[in-house]
This record gives sequence, C-alpha cells and structure tokens, in this order.
Amino acid sequence: MPDGPTITTIAEHAGVSIASVSRVLNGLPTRPETERKVMRAADELGYVRNAVARSLKSRRTHQIAFAMADIGNPVYLAMVRQIQPVLKTAGYRLVLHSTDAVVADEIDVLRSLGERYVDGLIMSPIRVTDDHLKMIENARAPVVIIGLVPDGTAVDNVRADSREGVRLAVGHLHERGRRRIGFLNGPLDTVPGAARDAAFREALEECGLPYDPALVEVGDFYREAGAQAARRLLERDGDVDALMCANDLIALGALDVLRQYGKRVPQDVAVVGMDDTDLAAASWPTLTSVSLGSAERGRAAAQLLLARLEDGGRAPTVVTVPPRLIVRESTLETS
Amino acid sequence: MPDGPTITTIAEHAGVSIASVSRVLNGLPTRPETERKVMRAADELGYVRNAVARSLKSRRTHQIAFAMADIGNPVYLAMVRQIQPVLKTAGYRLVLHSTDAVVADEIDVLRSLGERYVDGLIMSPIRVTDDHLKMIENARAPVVIIGLVPDGTAVDNVRADSREGVRLAVGHLHERGRRRIGFLNGPLDTVPGAARDAAFREALEECGLPYDPALVEVGDFYREAGAQAARRLLERDGDVDALMCANDLIALGALDVLRQYGKRVPQDVAVVGMDDTDLAAASWPTLTSVSLGSAERGRAAAQLLLARLEDGGRAPTVVTVPPRLIVRESTLETS
Repeated sequence: MPDGPTITTIAEHAGVSIASVSRVLNGLPTRPETERKVMRAADELGYVRNAVARSLKSRRTHQIAFAMADIGNPVYLAMVRQIQPVLKTAGYRLVLHSTDAVVADEIDVLRSLGERYVDGLIMSPIRVTDDHLKMIENARAPVVIIGLVPDGTAVDNVRADSREGVRLAVGHLHERGRRRIGFLNGPLDTVPGAARDAAFREALEECGLPYDPALVEVGDFYREAGAQAARRLLERDGDVDALMCANDLIALGALDVLRQYGKRVPQDVAVVGMDDTDLAAASWPTLTSVSLGSAERGRAAAQLLLARLEDGGRAPTVVTVPPRLIVRESTLETS
Repeated sequence: MPDGPTITTIAEHAGVSIASVSRVLNGLPTRPETERKVMRAADELGYVRNAVARSLKSRRTHQIAFAMADIGNPVYLAMVRQIQPVLKTAGYRLVLHSTDAVVADEIDVLRSLGERYVDGLIMSPIRVTDDHLKMIENARAPVVIIGLVPDGTAVDNVRADSREGVRLAVGHLHERGRRRIGFLNGPLDTVPGAARDAAFREALEECGLPYDPALVEVGDFYREAGAQAARRLLERDGDVDALMCANDLIALGALDVLRQYGKRVPQDVAVVGMDDTDLAAASWPTLTSVSLGSAERGRAAAQLLLARLEDGGRAPTVVTVPPRLIVRESTLETS
C-alpha cells in the first residue's frame, strides 16, 4: 500500500481530474499543459513513478535504444538528429549505445532487450554475424537494422545503396579526366567494406579502366587510418590522380596527407568521400562526397520501429535509400 | 511458475554448477569462461533474464547513463571514451542521452532515475537551474555532475578550471605580441559562457590590455555560430590580431571565415580554441587549444560514481582538473 502521495492527492494538488493524472503517469497522450501540471504536482509531492511496478502492468518503458558502431563518426550523429525528434514526438526518449563495432557488445545489447529497459532497438552493425542474425530474429522487443542484412531475414531493415554510390563517384572522377583512381577502403570483413570493394571494381570496369591492386589500400573507417592508407599509397605510387575514399573520415585523413606531400587538391589529386557528413562541407577544401542518405535512413528507421510497436504483426519491411553525389571543391577544378 | 528453462536446466546444459548459473544471472563476478558457457546455454534454451523480476530483488540494472549536452561536440566523445571502459571493467554498460542542452529534457532524465532503468547518472549540463539542483539533490540514484555547480551542493562534482584556462591562452597571445585580442564566446546564460567572459576580462587586465566591447562577440558553442560571430567581428574591426574562442568548434568556424577574408593564420590573426578536441589537432592549420582535461574529467566522473555506488554514505567530493595550453600552428609563428 502506498503511504506517500496517490493519484488522488496528485489530482487535487494539480487541480485536474484523476483520469488525467492516470493518463499522464501511464504515458498516454495528454495536453502538454495538463502534463506539466501533473508532473509538477507529482514532483512537489515527491511521487515516484515506479518503473518496476509500472512495467509489470504496461510493459512499456517509453524508451528506445539506438546502438551505433562509432560515436565518433558523424554519420551516426546525422542519424541521431533525425531519430530523436521522430521518437520524441511519439512520446519516446532515445538512449544511445556506442558499441565500437565490437560484436560481443552488440550481441549483449540485443540480449538485453529481454530485460525490457527499452521498448525497441535500432541497430547499425558493420559486421553482421550469424550470432547477430539469430539474436535479431529472436529478439524480445522490436528491432530495426540500419545496414545490409541477408535477404529474407525477418527484420525491418533500412539500407543504403553504396554500390550505386561508388558508381556515381568513380563515374564523376572519370568524367573529370582522372585515369589513375586510387581507392582507400575499410576492412573487407565488414559489410560496407566488402560492398564498396565489389562496387569499386565494377565501377572501374564500367569506365573501361583497369583494376590495379597497387592503387588500392585497405585500412579502417577512421581519420588516422585514412591518413596511414593514403601515406602507404603515395609512397608506392606518386602518379595517382584521384582518391575514392570509403567514408568521409578516411577522406579527411587523405587530405591531411596530401597537404603534407605538397599535392594540390583537386589539381594534382581529386578526392571523394562517402556519407556526406557535416565534416565534408566544413573541410578545406570542401569535400565532394556521396550522400548515402544518413538523415533519411535515420528517419525511416525510427518510423519503421514506431509502426512495428503499433502493429507487431506487420510483414518485415525493407527500405532502400538511394545515394546522391554532392560535388564540392575537392573534385571541381579540371586538371 | 516458469514453464521455460530454469537455472537447473541451464546448469545441466552448460555443464556447470547451479550456483555458477545463479551467480552469472545475478551479475556477480564469475570466471569469464563460466560466464560464456552459462550465457550460451541460456541463449540456446531461450532463457530470458527478466529485468523486472530481477530488479525487484537486486535493484541493480548494471547500466549507467551519461547525459551529454551536445552529441556533436567532440569534447563529450573524449569523455565517453574514458567513461565507457572504466564502467565496463566494473561490469556496467553505458547508455547515453543527448539532451541538446534543453533544460526540460535534462530534468526529465533526472526524474527518470526514479524508474530505475540505470543505477546511476553522469550529467554534463551547461545551464544549471534551480530545478536541476532540486532534482540532483533529491535524485533517486547516485548522480555525478561534470561542470560547475554552486559550492555546497550535495553532489559529487567534477570541474574544469576554465578561468585559469582563459588566463593561459590570453597570456600566450600577449607574449607573442598580440595586442588586439578578440573574443568569441557562447551564451552568457550558460555556466561556461559566464565563466569564460569573466575570465577573459581578468586575463586582459593581468596583461595590462584594455577591455574593448567591439572585440567581443557572443554567439553559441557551435561551428556555424563561431563562423557567424567571426564574420560580425571582422566586418566591424579589420585590425584584430588574435581570436580567443570559447571552444574548438567556435575556433574552427573562425578559421573558415578568416580563410574567406584572406587573413593568414597565424601571421595576420592568431587563433586559440578551448577543449583540445580531436578536431584541434586535425584542423588546418592545427589549432592551439586549452585542454580542460575532458578525458581526465570523464575518468574522474566514472570513478566517483563507482565509489558512490560502493558507499552511498561518502561525503560529496569535488574534483577539479587543471587546464593545460596545447600550442600548435595557429599561434606558433611570430607576426
């Protein structure tokens, strides 16, 4: 039995009906003014909504988790900036996990859905293991995956089209007269790394250019790794006239190194990034980048999750966001 | 009564003792190999640790929240990179909130501690209202504040010394012969904005320089706001020979604008940022910046929270991390 305030005393204190207090405390839609009155009265009276007791009844926490692979990569910030307002409007608070792409940590987050501290999860893994797929398909709460999962996986899924994105970028460089196009990629055992590697080979072929392994470096999706990869490539081959980079962080690392080597961008070497993050527009020179629609993907993921929470019986949906090439200074001048 | 797997069936399946299963499922220290066996067996048998039932008993969620003011500011990333491993080693998972410095959202996070979805909270507010202080002192779980709270507030608190930091920066610019030092600040109704404003005036006085309101611009702590502030200042006063910026994002915006105005950095205008984020070392030219010890502050906050979880009766502790000036290209050449 409660010996503190009850919904009756809160209703009296707030000057609203008992039904309104009940609606607010159960997280149901209420007029903002009513909600404010109730919450203020509840605070003043020292009322604590007990999540444990409440969860037993409603099984809703009004929280959604987003598990990002790398909190330092602004592509995820662009997603958060879309996911958060969509969820907030629907009455959900967003909690974030940064997994550093560690598979065990991602599995742990998926497992923790059984603990019901959130009502659903959006996850953006860069490696998708069998363990992921098993946990995703048997998850104890709705899950939306941003990224490529095998066709037929029973999960709501938002995809980019990085293959078409790489084609746009390589085609653009070829049109601008570049013939010795280098490629700085992330690990090939990641979904984006593998997809971009295959796409780069295809795109060269479409342009009638040969694939030269001496122009390809595999590193990681971080700025410093991009710098190291660019340095290795330039030490081996001084004649590269363009660099296709598997994300913007790699491209920024490459710009740093090109500056150290006295190479002018784009006159000597044109550079293209991927993800079109805030950093691309803010770099010097500004960076041509393939937008993979991170904002749209974030928004779509939030909307799919809300739809799933409304109707658990919907068929799994796949949304693919098309890429766009955003041309800036790093490829604009002709050589 | 459970009709699914029990700790007995899990113990049989995993080939370990019932006591070991109990320890693992209750989150007590166990040998990693045993934990792996138990978790694998639990997964294979479809056992779900029910957080609701478990919380009723142990009242531990093994999660800690960190509420950041701006997920796009790398100063918080530097903190996350320290907080996460410290907590992980102690068996806690980190969940993040991005509040965009919206007071109502911060109050909501503090209130939600009553719902026990985390065992504790680290918060870094940039405005500290009376509502914050009331919620902090009456919080339903341990709280650590990164940032300045009024002396005597009953909370564990990690502080920077931005006053000394501004003094170091202005002194450095003065030593390098700069006499018309501009100041690009964030909002004066924020704790860091107000502290840095007072510190800038004091620092000028120490150097024997007059305070000239025409050289001061107040904007916000974002890159684009920094660019706008720099533009306003340069339009009004073409003779400024140094810019002290209240954080690195403001400084990066200023670098963009100086480049547009054809001003050389540091020959024409020297620039200093604050927070010494990853972006300072990666900008062009590299940015002299005042380190306010974000990594140390993150680590200290995590350690204070763990100590508080061990011993709720400890006296509130204040840790102040001293600043350091990191000199880079943006102030290095003499004019």
